[in-house]
Amino acid sequence: MQFVTFEQNNRQYVGVFTLDQQHIVPLNTAEQCLAGTAMIPMSMMDIICAGSELMPVIQQVVEKALCDQSILIAVSDVALLAPIPRPAKNIFCIGKNYQEHAFEFEKTRDESVLPKYPVVFSKPPTCVIGPNAKVKRHAEFVSQLDYEVELGVIIGKKGSRIQKENAYDYIFGYTIINDVTARDLQKNHMQWLMGKGPDTFAPMGPCIVHKSAVPNPHDLHIQAAINGEIRQNSNTKDMIFDIPTILATISSVITLEPGDIIATGTPAGVGVGFIPPKFLKSGDVMELEISGIGKLINVIE
Amino acid sequence: MQFVTFEQNNRQYVGVFTLDQQHIVPLNTAEQCLAGTAMIPMSMMDIICAGSELMPVIQQVVEKALCDQSILIAVSDVALLAPIPRPAKNIFCIGKNYQEHAFEFEKTRDESVLPKYPVVFSKPPTCVIGPNAKVKRHAEFVSQLDYEVELGVIIGKKGSRIQKENAYDYIFGYTIINDVTARDLQKNHMQWLMGKGPDTFAPMGPCIVHKSAVPNPHDLHIQAAINGEIRQNSNTKDMIFDIPTILATISSVITLEPGDIIATGTPAGVGVGFIPPKFLKSGDVMELEISGIGKLINVIE
Repeated sequence: MQFVTFEQNNRQYVGVFTLDQQHIVPLNTAEQCLAGTAMIPMSMMDIICAGSELMPVIQQVVEKALCDQSILIAVSDVALLAPIPRPAKNIFCIGKNYQEHAFEFEKTRDESVLPKYPVVFSKPPTCVIGPNAKVKRHAEFVSQLDYEVELGVIIGKKGSRIQKENAYDYIFGYTIINDVTARDLQKNHMQWLMGKGPDTFAPMGPCIVHKSAVPNPHDLHIQAAINGEIRQNSNTKDMIFDIPTILATISSVITLEPGDIIATGTPAGVGVGFIPPKFLKSGDVMELEISGIGKLINVIE
Repeated sequence: MQFVTFEQNNRQYVGVFTLDQQHIVPLNTAEQCLAGTAMIPMSMMDIICAGSELMPVIQQVVEKALCDQSILIAVSDVALLAPIPRPAKNIFCIGKNYQEHAFEFEKTRDESVLPKYPVVFSKPPTCVIGPNAKVKRHAEFVSQLDYEVELGVIIGKKGSRIQKENAYDYIFGYTIINDVTARDLQKNHMQWLMGKGPDTFAPMGPCIVHKSAVPNPHDLHIQAAINGEIRQNSNTKDMIFDIPTILATISSVITLEPGDIIATGTPAGVGVGFIPPKFLKSGDVMELEISGIGKLINVIE
């Protein structure tokens, strides 16, 4: 199932995409709340925290809705939000996690630039925006605006010192994250929070795909196109540190919690990697795609 | 006023320290809730968000309590928690913000190691613990455990592109933060989140002092003693980037929100600065003190 958060009449709802991602089966409409369905998730966090128990209940609601199509909502009639519109902490991010990207970022093919340990930094919750929302340029302060398509892992269960062999037990699902970056701030401030953290710099969506629908998260085509030109074009099998390693590393000392988000790094092809660099400008359309998850489209303001 | 969060009978309360910090005037006891006081803050976030309107109301409650001392609670009868036990995002932290610390950290007095722009990184909410709570060693993964006393700034009002001359309008108050650090993880992982972010690595407290009681946050004695030996001994006037500059820099691109916490950097005298280094071990007592705020004491597990 592909879970979405959306807004209608200034209220937030959660729902499930139909297979073509053109319609939504709503899970907590006013009608459903009045009808007193046994377990009504009020937010994506409720769905994530409820864990596997809730899945058959939601499956029933979805199957019923597909028979009685009157309940379906057209995606074009609502505003999709980020699946988790307001995370309860910063997003964990992994830097230089694809070899070719590490080389392009450091302008060298010397293997000494490859990280020996996962590089972990964060983006504040104020970065998060949904599909089709505009990314701010912050033009007064940022002159080197860049994109990064990344597979986002959503934690489903509290975990400390997670063992690699159990890592997938702690995952709820997957999404797409655009790790928008101000290269100048990233460099000037040494640590990356200022370059990675500006408002609107974490577009996320269009949905969270439950892990049951992603048999192998390390065999997904991952790409980013800017104004139709494919710039990043890779596969999640090329990560230097795989998802179990990332979860084991972070949780060795930091307790992971349901709803935590981990952006797993970006492949080669970002703007700063080109000679001359191809930084983003007003009106540029970023079209990010990961197979089995969908497309995340955002425009630069 | 000095605001505290404390726990009694497994419930969290907020209150105000008496001047000697030995007693607490509770602000949301069950009795007060039953009496239906006009504005009852249920948490520190309520107090922070209510802003200046709530201050006269709280002042009245405190004055009444000081007359009728039966309402006072002895600090020794409760567990003080971190003033904000669970921040809504990572703590913003400023690195290398005192010249002598930058020199000791980089093992050189070459001024080229001084930051030209504030170095900003973060600590997850899972780091936060209160006064007297134990700091975990994470001994399997951390061998170079270090302390850092820092002045913590608590944001009181939402702000974007804050001008330096208005910066103090956006501050609610001040606290003490121990930016506990695993020097080995800090180095190995390049970006500092892993070294700064382990569970229990952000002791905070004992209180938040309202800004009205801190006429000049850049004239505070700041010190840390380990097992009684004074290691850090400085003054907040020695910050490289002052508080208005820090707020202006972060908020230039990142919206600051009420309850946000900024740890403003540590002076010289941390364990890694000594030859040989003086890293922390089990049973070590860290006693941090900032004039006008109080003492924050934590022991290594």
